[in-house]
Amino acid sequence: MSSTAGQVIRCRAAVAWEAGKALVIEEVDVAPPQAMEVRLKILYTSVCRSDIYFWEAKGQIPLFPRIFGHEAAGIVESVGDGVTDLKPGDHVIPVHTGECKECIHCKSKEGNMCDLLRVNLGRGVMISDGQSRFSINGKPIYHFVGTSTYSEYTVVHVGCVAKINPLAPLDKVCILGCGISSGLGAVLNVAKPPKGSSVAVFGLGAVGLAAAEGARISGASRIIGVDVNPKKFDHAKNFGVSEFVNPKDHDKPVQEVIAEMTGGGVDRSIECTGDVDAMISAFECVHDGWGVAVLVGVPHKDAVFKTHPMNLLHQRTLKGTLFGNYKPRTDLPAIVEKYMNKELVLEKFITHEVPFAEINKAYEFMLNGDSLRCIIRMDG
Amino acid sequence: MSSTAGQVIRCRAAVAWEAGKALVIEEVDVAPPQAMEVRLKILYTSVCRSDIYFWEAKGQIPLFPRIFGHEAAGIVESVGDGVTDLKPGDHVIPVHTGECKECIHCKSKEGNMCDLLRVNLGRGVMISDGQSRFSINGKPIYHFVGTSTYSEYTVVHVGCVAKINPLAPLDKVCILGCGISSGLGAVLNVAKPPKGSSVAVFGLGAVGLAAAEGARISGASRIIGVDVNPKKFDHAKNFGVSEFVNPKDHDKPVQEVIAEMTGGGVDRSIECTGDVDAMISAFECVHDGWGVAVLVGVPHKDAVFKTHPMNLLHQRTLKGTLFGNYKPRTDLPAIVEKYMNKELVLEKFITHEVPFAEINKAYEFMLNGDSLRCIIRMDG
Repeated sequence: MSSTAGQVIRCRAAVAWEAGKALVIEEVDVAPPQAMEVRLKILYTSVCRSDIYFWEAKGQIPLFPRIFGHEAAGIVESVGDGVTDLKPGDHVIPVHTGECKECIHCKSKEGNMCDLLRVNLGRGVMISDGQSRFSINGKPIYHFVGTSTYSEYTVVHVGCVAKINPLAPLDKVCILGCGISSGLGAVLNVAKPPKGSSVAVFGLGAVGLAAAEGARISGASRIIGVDVNPKKFDHAKNFGVSEFVNPKDHDKPVQEVIAEMTGGGVDRSIECTGDVDAMISAFECVHDGWGVAVLVGVPHKDAVFKTHPMNLLHQRTLKGTLFGNYKPRTDLPAIVEKYMNKELVLEKFITHEVPFAEINKAYEFMLNGDSLRCIIRMDG
Repeated sequence: MSSTAGQVIRCRAAVAWEAGKALVIEEVDVAPPQAMEVRLKILYTSVCRSDIYFWEAKGQIPLFPRIFGHEAAGIVESVGDGVTDLKPGDHVIPVHTGECKECIHCKSKEGNMCDLLRVNLGRGVMISDGQSRFSINGKPIYHFVGTSTYSEYTVVHVGCVAKINPLAPLDKVCILGCGISSGLGAVLNVAKPPKGSSVAVFGLGAVGLAAAEGARISGASRIIGVDVNPKKFDHAKNFGVSEFVNPKDHDKPVQEVIAEMTGGGVDRSIECTGDVDAMISAFECVHDGWGVAVLVGVPHKDAVFKTHPMNLLHQRTLKGTLFGNYKPRTDLPAIVEKYMNKELVLEKFITHEVPFAEINKAYEFMLNGDSLRCIIRMDG
């Protein structure tokens, strides 16, 4: 039992006081975990597109002050009542979507939409009591997707914590907490391209490149990258992306460009931007007869997907996924093993590293499209 | 070789001179089949919703005068050059979508979108020479979907003709040419409900009831029928449909009604009306995490399918099909055998029968929602 168990821990956290304003490192009080909760010491975290998106709060309901962060790795500091799967000292990855292991979804072989712990983007409190575990001078600071890893300590529901191999380097596997697994699983678990397939990836950020990595692992013959930012293309070559389309270079819709490049369309497409027009293009660029499009990027709250129904009757399939359909507690340890076995290379996703005190730089790298993943060292 | 081979045949056909006006039985000249074509003596035909839809021409481009009809069975009268698979006397079912056996689609295990012979709703001529084989006083009459079975004789591309067991009763298996196979295949080939699934069927005409039959064969535990016409419900009970929803009986969207009935949604839904709002409901009524919706009904040419992309990210799948994804020449003979083995009961779809001279009655039965299938005897 750690000496801090049962005590409030005062530590540093990066607080977003207002939408779009620089995060501020503050001293926050982190309450002990309640029943079925665990308190984690976060060692490494990173910035995922959703941390930016909800911080900007342009397309979503604003909720401030809030502690963002949902890609991280750390060590269990203490556990609340009823927690039997985890103990202090366990190496873990917290996840924004959970797995209660009891509901109809957790018991189903398909999907990961846990009834109790599915991702809830608008909730800023713990589900057990509707309260925050973070406060400054007694005033609550909201959580983000149940993880809030931009804090040296955070409290997470036990169902949102994957216990991993203690030999895994936490400064690498921390990025498996969201984007990389989402892109990888979208291909391996959902799109399932047969060997020799052509695959289009919309959005060449880390999620899209993880999808490309999934396509490479699946034996795709062509991986076509689509992005409006040509800076992304150079890096994407390291991920097996061999052809590029910048929609800005063409007068016609990108789905027509891709259909011409591929004799009618790609076998699979993966949409990783969240832009609804890209979603429509990603769907309409798959080959009739057998093409499958998978939506990964999180849409604007008012987005409407539109297509002519004949595009569906012509035997195209449209699917979507959250966290690559991985059940986090069950499946994440095996993805960590894929890294340990060198089947999956994580280093090439990690382009930057900053100490926690400079977390706003990590935000800037992402905003400027300069980084894939920037690791934030919590001890710095 | 029949005595009529190589000759123009003068015979009766039901000609649609104008959109929505009663068909007129006329004497038409049917030219001999050209290369890769066959001329069929039609013995039985029936009325499918698409015959009505394109005759009304409300949601599609009008093309008149035209000979409709695409569910039928008959006997090969003569064959054109290059036809080796069929010979005079063979018992056959013509199909509105073809199978050339050479293209990428025909060689793929998936789908049936033959590059050469896929259904073409706007074309009224033969593909080889862009001409019609029908004429009255030398003036051409347009074909419909390559079949035009409302004629005692018709000319069809060999790739659109399935050769079947000569013992099969043509007055029954004629209905496998479109609607019944479309509904059945949408479930067996596309939706693939696991045993014990709940299945919603939108539209309780013959296609929807064939989908229900597919659900029953698949071992569905609940089959929920949705129709705005309560007259359909009584008949649907014979097809294993045990629960009914009339959207007109509810103030809330039917997808919400179904979600409440089923604890979150059905496992599979099949849309057989072609109405775009029904398509949206059919998609949104499937359970998150694993639900699959399949679109079967042919949409209005200006229809737009709309949904919030989160409905997809929540792990629902949207698919569509034409002719139940069956490859007609390869797969139709096996469906006929399913009927011969009594796995599939066709008699319960056949509610009416009229002689050819009274074909407009068959149209009225369909328009009034009184019939499932009305068999038209060409000798009458």
